[in-house]
Amino acid sequence: MAPHREGSDASVEAMVAQVEKHPISSILIIIAMQTEALPVVNKFQLIENPHSSFPKGVPWIHYHGAYKGIIINLVWPGKDLTFGVDSVGTISASLVTYASIQALQPDLIINAGTAGGFKEKGAAIGDVFLVSHVAFHDRRIPIPVFDLYGVGLRQTYSTPNLLKALNLKTGKLSTGDSLDMSPHDEASIAANDATVKDMEGAAVAYVAELLKVPAIFVKAVTDIVDGEKPTAEEFLRNLAAVTATLEEVVTQVIDFISGKCLPEL
Amino acid sequence: MAPHREGSDASVEAMVAQVEKHPISSILIIIAMQTEALPVVNKFQLIENPHSSFPKGVPWIHYHGAYKGIIINLVWPGKDLTFGVDSVGTISASLVTYASIQALQPDLIINAGTAGGFKEKGAAIGDVFLVSHVAFHDRRIPIPVFDLYGVGLRQTYSTPNLLKALNLKTGKLSTGDSLDMSPHDEASIAANDATVKDMEGAAVAYVAELLKVPAIFVKAVTDIVDGEKPTAEEFLRNLAAVTATLEEVVTQVIDFISGKCLPEL
Repeated sequence: MAPHREGSDASVEAMVAQVEKHPISSILIIIAMQTEALPVVNKFQLIENPHSSFPKGVPWIHYHGAYKGIIINLVWPGKDLTFGVDSVGTISASLVTYASIQALQPDLIINAGTAGGFKEKGAAIGDVFLVSHVAFHDRRIPIPVFDLYGVGLRQTYSTPNLLKALNLKTGKLSTGDSLDMSPHDEASIAANDATVKDMEGAAVAYVAELLKVPAIFVKAVTDIVDGEKPTAEEFLRNLAAVTATLEEVVTQVIDFISGKCLPEL
Repeated sequence: MAPHREGSDASVEAMVAQVEKHPISSILIIIAMQTEALPVVNKFQLIENPHSSFPKGVPWIHYHGAYKGIIINLVWPGKDLTFGVDSVGTISASLVTYASIQALQPDLIINAGTAGGFKEKGAAIGDVFLVSHVAFHDRRIPIPVFDLYGVGLRQTYSTPNLLKALNLKTGKLSTGDSLDMSPHDEASIAANDATVKDMEGAAVAYVAELLKVPAIFVKAVTDIVDGEKPTAEEFLRNLAAVTATLEEVVTQVIDFISGKCLPEL
């Protein structure tokens, strides 16, 4: 099979065609960390669903509510059962995206969260990006075609009107399971032409494409990767303030979506 | 919550207690590559299930059959829909493990596949390891407790009688999404005390623990990571011969399991 440089979104288009005449009625917000999720939960007065259809024993939390004619579902993968920290990274993100799509059949996925930004590409602390493309930077498989599969470059669902209306920055997102950046990761991130770097986005995009649900990515910058300060320290210091900004932009996105069909975004 | 250095298997033990008086009746074999899967499919004359309960459109393939009183399910994540190569790595492995457990409720999971081996730790081409522990080597999160979550060290389901009966080698497995090994990965693999290195094991273990299914890991060495030859070249050259060996050992494992209860393994 001939390799394609970007994931085809023909299947997503087919799905969009089915729902394009109906206003968006149900969205799924995937957020990796509790600190990122709670401002959104509070803003929309979402309540935890104690009868979620997730398997018994998993830590995943489903919040839901209604706002301006839209059913809002927010899923946070919860605290790791062994270590008690947020279940960050691509594996948890993949699993909750898969299980949530199966359970909730959303019209649109919004993956919202914090990210590292590259000042060389125009990112500053507190910036919120609406992501144009996603790719992985820590899946190096130096065999022809497997190399492209590893990188997994995908275009996100295109929302030109939303981008223009909210006056957001846009750029490419690179995803990996480490908070730091090794020289190998750095080279891959540069090859991915990324402005922002996170730990979930490309995994959510992979599963969304697999199950044919359009997905958009709203990423707020907590730390400058190509700056002087250590990433972990800067991330933790800015986390609370930046998640407040993230909540504001997610609200603006949902206000914009309200009453619209997918092709109007 | 206090961090634990290893995943607690109290929940797995509770599950085992429920089924310990019954011989194992259903197993789930997870194999990432078609070349690794087909010898096992052929050996047990498994047939593809055209009515699998996987979602429409996913490339995942469910083979099944019966052998010596055991229902054998084998799931291979299939060819990537965009790139046409085997869907290797932790994300696909996590998703198919999750979906297969939900659909098939197996008594035991066997993750079988090829791996890189470290000669310094006693591995040679063609060796088959029954893995004692799994961990990740490419999830570096330098924040207290998150660092342990990233590494995700887990003890596998203990099968001392199986190990002894088959006279297999044993050692620790380190998992990452790259076929190559960066200096950062190398340091983490050393910290994980790993004898073998793969691209799926720790992800399968994570999901198996989440859903409380005991899992064992059978890994056959295709290439020596700390040798002179390039990994990709050596991997591709040895793949066919080593997968034949892998099939033989998987057969021996299933022969041993037949008629036994979990605590007898």
